[in-house]
Amino acid sequence: MSQVVPRQAVADLCCSPVLQAELNADEAQQLARALKVLADPARLRLLSLIRRADGGRTATVDLSDRLGLTQPTITHHLGALYDAGFVCRERQGRQTWYSVNTDGVETIRQLLDPELPAASDEPGS
Amino acid sequence: MSQVVPRQAVADLCCSPVLQAELNADEAQQLARALKVLADPARLRLLSLIRRADGGRTATVDLSDRLGLTQPTITHHLGALYDAGFVCRERQGRQTWYSVNTDGVETIRQLLDPELPAASDEPGS
Repeated sequence: MSQVVPRQAVADLCCSPVLQAELNADEAQQLARALKVLADPARLRLLSLIRRADGGRTATVDLSDRLGLTQPTITHHLGALYDAGFVCRERQGRQTWYSVNTDGVETIRQLLDPELPAASDEPGS
Repeated sequence: MSQVVPRQAVADLCCSPVLQAELNADEAQQLARALKVLADPARLRLLSLIRRADGGRTATVDLSDRLGLTQPTITHHLGALYDAGFVCRERQGRQTWYSVNTDGVETIRQLLDPELPAASDEPGS
């Protein structure tokens, strides 16, 4: 079965970095929601473990062993990361394999870019 | 009175990007705590407004008007952003002025860098 790319909620986020254009209430809600998914120690460790795994993907059973968390807890965190667009998943037989969706993480990074646009990029300049 | 640079909790964060080295439990806790501070729509809008303000700084009274939140609510959010290292503050008379601590935001961005280190950077390669 082929890899399932997540719905990528983060891909729907506003296009302008937070610090480069004024954020409206909806954009702020969406970005806050995505950051909230990341703002969890177990999820950050999951991303770290998955990204560093052989071939860039890991089965849930291996993650459970590594983090000392139960399988249902791991599955819950991976579901949240998948729904938000931070991991991709692939089923093979009875195993589900996860890989980091680097595009999703990169979207968050771009939205937090603290550099102001160059003066020549400003409208009316 | 001169500008007060925050204690920069984010500056104490682990040095290796999450997706490039395995994150231990303490590092994951620290980064999750910093992300939690950012994962709030009002705080993201505050950062956006402050960064785009004339001279890159804003007084709390202006922020309260712009976001339609009470002064105590704004002060609470700014305190959290300051404690985490995302804003600097400066008192002038009865006013407190805030500016974005771009180093703090940049630290978070670096920690979320999804690129793996080049093979030649790997130990033992």
